[in-house]
Amino acid sequence: MGKSSKKQSSKAGLPPGTLVHVGKKRSTQVKINVIDYNAEVYEVSESVPVQELSSFQNADTITWIDINGLHDLEIIKSIGEQFELHGLLLEDVVNTTHRPKVEEYDDHIYLTLKMLGIGASRKSIISEQVSFILGDNWLISFQEREGDVLESVRSRLSENKGIIRKQGADYLLYSLIDTIVDNYFFVSEYFSDSIEKLEEKVLIETNTLILQEIQQQKKLLLNFRKSITPLREAISSIQKEESVLVKSSTTRYLRDVYEHLLQLTEIIESHRDLIASVMDLYLSGESNKMNKTMQVLTIIATIFIPLTFVAGIYGMNFDEMPELHWKYGYQAVWGLMGVIFILMLIFFRRKKWL
Amino acid sequence: MGKSSKKQSSKAGLPPGTLVHVGKKRSTQVKINVIDYNAEVYEVSESVPVQELSSFQNADTITWIDINGLHDLEIIKSIGEQFELHGLLLEDVVNTTHRPKVEEYDDHIYLTLKMLGIGASRKSIISEQVSFILGDNWLISFQEREGDVLESVRSRLSENKGIIRKQGADYLLYSLIDTIVDNYFFVSEYFSDSIEKLEEKVLIETNTLILQEIQQQKKLLLNFRKSITPLREAISSIQKEESVLVKSSTTRYLRDVYEHLLQLTEIIESHRDLIASVMDLYLSGESNKMNKTMQVLTIIATIFIPLTFVAGIYGMNFDEMPELHWKYGYQAVWGLMGVIFILMLIFFRRKKWL
Amino acid sequence: MGKSSKKQSSKAGLPPGTLVHVGKKRSTQVKINVIDYNAEVYEVSESVPVQELSSFQNADTITWIDINGLHDLEIIKSIGEQFELHGLLLEDVVNTTHRPKVEEYDDHIYLTLKMLGIGASRKSIISEQVSFILGDNWLISFQEREGDVLESVRSRLSENKGIIRKQGADYLLYSLIDTIVDNYFFVSEYFSDSIEKLEEKVLIETNTLILQEIQQQKKLLLNFRKSITPLREAISSIQKEESVLVKSSTTRYLRDVYEHLLQLTEIIESHRDLIASVMDLYLSGESNKMNKTMQVLTIIATIFIPLTFVAGIYGMNFDEMPELHWKYGYQAVWGLMGVIFILMLIFFRRKKWL
Amino acid sequence: MGKSSKKQSSKAGLPPGTLVHVGKKRSTQVKINVIDYNAEVYEVSESVPVQELSSFQNADTITWIDINGLHDLEIIKSIGEQFELHGLLLEDVVNTTHRPKVEEYDDHIYLTLKMLGIGASRKSIISEQVSFILGDNWLISFQEREGDVLESVRSRLSENKGIIRKQGADYLLYSLIDTIVDNYFFVSEYFSDSIEKLEEKVLIETNTLILQEIQQQKKLLLNFRKSITPLREAISSIQKEESVLVKSSTTRYLRDVYEHLLQLTEIIESHRDLIASVMDLYLSGESNKMNKTMQVLTIIATIFIPLTFVAGIYGMNFDEMPELHWKYGYQAVWGLMGVIFILMLIFFRRKKWL
Amino acid sequence: MGKSSKKQSSKAGLPPGTLVHVGKKRSTQVKINVIDYNAEVYEVSESVPVQELSSFQNADTITWIDINGLHDLEIIKSIGEQFELHGLLLEDVVNTTHRPKVEEYDDHIYLTLKMLGIGASRKSIISEQVSFILGDNWLISFQEREGDVLESVRSRLSENKGIIRKQGADYLLYSLIDTIVDNYFFVSEYFSDSIEKLEEKVLIETNTLILQEIQQQKKLLLNFRKSITPLREAISSIQKEESVLVKSSTTRYLRDVYEHLLQLTEIIESHRDLIASVMDLYLSGESNKMNKTMQVLTIIATIFIPLTFVAGIYGMNFDEMPELHWKYGYQAVWGLMGVIFILMLIFFRRKKWL
Repeated sequence: MGKSSKKQSSKAGLPPGTLVHVGKKRSTQVKINVIDYNAEVYEVSESVPVQELSSFQNADTITWIDINGLHDLEIIKSIGEQFELHGLLLEDVVNTTHRPKVEEYDDHIYLTLKMLGIGASRKSIISEQVSFILGDNWLISFQEREGDVLESVRSRLSENKGIIRKQGADYLLYSLIDTIVDNYFFVSEYFSDSIEKLEEKVLIETNTLILQEIQQQKKLLLNFRKSITPLREAISSIQKEESVLVKSSTTRYLRDVYEHLLQLTEIIESHRDLIASVMDLYLSGESNKMNKTMQVLTIIATIFIPLTFVAGIYGMNFDEMPELHWKYGYQAVWGLMGVIFILMLIFFRRKKWL
Repeated sequence: MGKSSKKQSSKAGLPPGTLVHVGKKRSTQVKINVIDYNAEVYEVSESVPVQELSSFQNADTITWIDINGLHDLEIIKSIGEQFELHGLLLEDVVNTTHRPKVEEYDDHIYLTLKMLGIGASRKSIISEQVSFILGDNWLISFQEREGDVLESVRSRLSENKGIIRKQGADYLLYSLIDTIVDNYFFVSEYFSDSIEKLEEKVLIETNTLILQEIQQQKKLLLNFRKSITPLREAISSIQKEESVLVKSSTTRYLRDVYEHLLQLTEIIESHRDLIASVMDLYLSGESNKMNKTMQVLTIIATIFIPLTFVAGIYGMNFDEMPELHWKYGYQAVWGLMGVIFILMLIFFRRKKWL
Repeated sequence: MGKSSKKQSSKAGLPPGTLVHVGKKRSTQVKINVIDYNAEVYEVSESVPVQELSSFQNADTITWIDINGLHDLEIIKSIGEQFELHGLLLEDVVNTTHRPKVEEYDDHIYLTLKMLGIGASRKSIISEQVSFILGDNWLISFQEREGDVLESVRSRLSENKGIIRKQGADYLLYSLIDTIVDNYFFVSEYFSDSIEKLEEKVLIETNTLILQEIQQQKKLLLNFRKSITPLREAISSIQKEESVLVKSSTTRYLRDVYEHLLQLTEIIESHRDLIASVMDLYLSGESNKMNKTMQVLTIIATIFIPLTFVAGIYGMNFDEMPELHWKYGYQAVWGLMGVIFILMLIFFRRKKWL
Repeated sequence: MGKSSKKQSSKAGLPPGTLVHVGKKRSTQVKINVIDYNAEVYEVSESVPVQELSSFQNADTITWIDINGLHDLEIIKSIGEQFELHGLLLEDVVNTTHRPKVEEYDDHIYLTLKMLGIGASRKSIISEQVSFILGDNWLISFQEREGDVLESVRSRLSENKGIIRKQGADYLLYSLIDTIVDNYFFVSEYFSDSIEKLEEKVLIETNTLILQEIQQQKKLLLNFRKSITPLREAISSIQKEESVLVKSSTTRYLRDVYEHLLQLTEIIESHRDLIASVMDLYLSGESNKMNKTMQVLTIIATIFIPLTFVAGIYGMNFDEMPELHWKYGYQAVWGLMGVIFILMLIFFRRKKWL
Repeated sequence: MGKSSKKQSSKAGLPPGTLVHVGKKRSTQVKINVIDYNAEVYEVSESVPVQELSSFQNADTITWIDINGLHDLEIIKSIGEQFELHGLLLEDVVNTTHRPKVEEYDDHIYLTLKMLGIGASRKSIISEQVSFILGDNWLISFQEREGDVLESVRSRLSENKGIIRKQGADYLLYSLIDTIVDNYFFVSEYFSDSIEKLEEKVLIETNTLILQEIQQQKKLLLNFRKSITPLREAISSIQKEESVLVKSSTTRYLRDVYEHLLQLTEIIESHRDLIASVMDLYLSGESNKMNKTMQVLTIIATIFIPLTFVAGIYGMNFDEMPELHWKYGYQAVWGLMGVIFILMLIFFRRKKWL
């Protein structure tokens, strides 16, 4: 979260239903696009003024209203009035720190989740909150900013690929969720790659930078899991509660999404185990490094301390030291030292230190 | 808990229903404020004598009786008699070490929770127990001392903001709980900040003070969680049990509070993970420090021990040591030492110790 | 468990219903006290012979038969026959290693739990098994030995404090359990104190004694939890199963006990976390100690090894060593050594080792 | 499991119901003993030929057929045909690696569990699979080999102790299970003793042998738990499912067994915690040992390195070294060294290293 | 997963029901074998063209259609049309990264699982996804490639062993699953062996290679568990949901498979505990190695530093050093050194370092 973003706590003390935009303040215009379609018709309207939205509501076609930008509260309020949405619902829409959830109202279903992607530099995960409101034959989507991963759904609509044009708004909702969840697999593969790279790095060397990277991956994974687990529960609850808004044929498709989320949960758990293992490798690497350092010290000290002692002996100034006067005394000392040196080498070789 | 506070165990052996004030003894007067309102009327009475409270009970308006101070047991008893409250309920009100809980009685609901705030120095978390008793059209709140985070609710009442004046006592209760829970996010952000600061500190240096701070944060987080988890369950149980005192419209609002508490639980779990990570960083920092110390020792010892040995050799007093009589013997020894020194430097450079 | 106590396994191979006293063998007499009371009457009979107990059973009053001592199996058997108790029930009464549990029979309820206290030296936890059998208007309690924490209940009975004399045997049972559970808070505070003391000690020094103390506290806490968790479940099951022996008014009181036990469970979990933290502090303290030792060694070695090398140089016996013949050569060497020494000090100061 | 024993995987690819003896191959004869009894009659037949078993089946008495040895598949098959047992049941009987379980068939109940004992040397746990098939008034038990812990039941039968002769086959089954479970407490006490001994050893010294012992205890405990947990569930399921084969009076007794198993589960969890603590003690002991080693090195090096430096100084060969010519120079140097030595001692005393 | 294999994320953005082969691309021909049988008839047809498959569907016999290879999407699609299979089902068939699951459709059941085996070098685990579609009297199996562990089932069919020819397609399905699950025990024994070998290695020496092996085993075990746990749930759900396609007699057999999977889950948990223990052994081995290194250093330093000091003393050049002029001064110094040496040896012997 950036410095300029409002925090959840900034809402404390306000009456419920008060709209407070919790998230990054943006200067761009809120852009509203509408796609109106049925099996025969397909019509796209870009930058529709907010007042005209209600005209789409009771039409004979399926209407997808896509709102890009949450910071203009007047627009949100106006939509709320036109579609008779509950105050708390709108509050959730503009609070971009909310955990994924689903809520059923009398004549619409509210669902919010995170759209995740990998940053251009493949170094960060980009998160954007998307909220959906599913009505009888309309679907409103709220995105934090323009640009999303939903192009494939739009092209299926425009090119009439698959069965999407023949189905209702609930199938459209499913298609959008499915596409977003499919993108989670990119994120999960990003983690697989990152952890594998970290593991390789840790086996080569250990330093504080790598430690910080491990720490960083842990945090990102915690955040990723926070997007998955509540969504899984939300999808599961749509499946179970029999709403007239979601046809039973779509329910079967949602089960597929649910299973993808289950698979993701398991993958995340594996990733957590793997990061813990990488941390173990790191700590063991540190301890290994120390062992190596100690061995160098021990080898040097163990070889030279006795030799220095021998040299010390013959540096003494006693009047009577017969060896000093031997003809080959000096050479004998060198010989003695050579023997000591070789014995030490054998000793270290046995200990596999050399 | 201060030194002068009574402990839970001081109640052992007393008959149930005996009022024992478990908490800090205060010398201040207990202050009772009453707010009486409906959509048209709004009246505040400060420092109301306890005997007059029952006169508010059966009025046509919603009455919020706010009691500041729990140490005067006579007042508590008198209220208990006027509003026909169960003895165990009053016992819970004055026991400020109680965990959050909700209890339904025949014609009132009892709910107790912790009001949390950050101390002025941003170094400590201030906790105060607040108990609510919700009756038909009245709400009694018991606070440990004057001063709270509920001013925003009072101003909404006085300025008739939102729908609060049009709703019943149950909505007032919800508004108060919601405000208190919103304040928990300040505490959770305090933890985010503290842990981030700790992490930065740990990456710079490791010492026992930081260790104690980590320990301290762990304890605070344990306490914070103790305020959240049982409250979440309590709110969930109000929602599920259909009481005549809580209208179904308010239930929907309570679900919102419940979700905030759920979100807080998840945040706390993340914080715990993060503190554990900071501890890991600390331990790894310690081990890193040792590694560094060992490297310094090893470098110095490994360079100078062989050199000292060479010097020792030519300090020997043998009669026949040809090198001693060479013209440039001394210079040659310096040269030899220089070569050894440079070889060592290369060796350490290879090991990336220098 | 002392050396002279029988173990659970000593029962292997005996037919079910065989009474085997598992626990410390005592030489003292089994003492049976009877309190007979109703709202008007209150009569205490001490050291009642076992044969006369049945005479109290069908009386118009509530009868509390308090048996102190389990080692005289004849007495237990005789009671079993007079009150028509199941063989397995009596087996459980005399097996003092049993976990807390409740069992409903056709016309009585059996409940066993641990009465805990702090030893005189505040160093140990004293545990005694207490079993209750609740009949229509009688209650039998079995204690391992004389002396208990129940005096306050007796005085409430004799002085007719509270509502105890107006209620049935079920309320008496509740009062006794409540008093015992209230005493658990003393034990829990004993742990709070012990762990805090350990934490302080560990921050000052680390040695094997402290390690053993930590280990000891862990074991005690494990045992404490073994007394709490099954009791909580037992109390919960009395509440839920609607027995004619326990009135619904008493059930509400039992819920209070249940909540105390829940609170205790949470406190114990916190204590476990804290002990784990103390262990972490200990290990980190050990590692810190090592760091300190290494620094001393490194400082000394790093300062003196180069200096000794310099001294070694000028101890060489080369014919031509110009420095040796300088007028202030010796002083110059001291100067050189001083410079090396100061550089080293600066180096260590920078590393914050000094 | 020995080298000659077949493994579970050796069954892969065979049709279900194929009998494969998974376990140790034995050369001994399979021995079949039959006890036939009711309240009046008691008759033992040893080494009954397998063809005659069916003659016992429809008798007026309770029949316990005890088969010692599972390796003769012909015998097992013959029994299966005489008593009309399901193929999968027989497959389970001869597969001695099976986890404890219970299975209800139309007119018999199948239960398999592990009979555990301590080896003669008190070093190992001996495990034997026992399977029971409970019919209307007959019980078949399959044991891996002769010799068991069930003698006490046989003597209760022969001496008509307790109520066993007056009850049906279900009570006999209960008595056998109860005896086997009672023996588990011996095993649990074996663990208590082993862990306590390990703890004492670890506090005295740490070496790889102790580490291997800790590892060994961990594995044994894992195996022990594998015998307990599924059996507990099995017993619980017999209790709940109301089978005509198990009378409700026996169900109460089985609850007792269930509770013993619950108690064992808790004891095992404590043991696991304790072994983890012993491992902690071990690691801390290792680290303590290192600390001690480092202190010795540091003390020696810190005392002698400065002293050696002083000696080095006065071994230099400068022409002008005034101290060398002082009358008491040599003594002065000794004095200086003494002062350094004492200062060092004070320093170490302060650090509590000496 | 190889480099050439497509990943799960490659499906993002495609309409649901689009067949994308996620897995290794193969160049071999897809081979379809059909076995047609009942109690009397048995007929094998190899390499059947895909168009002729539907002719088998409504026959009087049980038909097992075995498809080897998933990369030819045209064939998959054609089968889907002939047998009226749901689009999502076919999508799952060709996505070989799917977790095991079962799904019931109106007139067929879909089940997918992993067939595991040990590689020829006993170094790796080979995994292949197998999907089954069970119809009224037909069963289709999809395998990734030719070669499987199902030969034993085929021979039981051809040789009319056991009851397999007398039962329906559900029993065939059970037989195939049972055979695959039985093969899991080979994998589990492979882990037992690997972990035991690792444990032995770790007790002998510790190095980074062993660390990587431990890490590798952890990952394999995580993968193995991912094949077991969801399959267990799937089998359990077939058992519970009463489908007309699975006869109740077969359900009992499936319970057997379920129990094998339960047993495998427990074994895997034990393996995880054991790997964690091996990691502990490794770390303790590292620390032990360091201890040993430190002891060598300490012994050498502690013996020779004092001796060198003594030699240093008598290398000083003081004018007045009486010892230097003693007759046996030199010998006395040797004696002194000998005494110091012996004292040191005794000291180390006491510390059990030698």
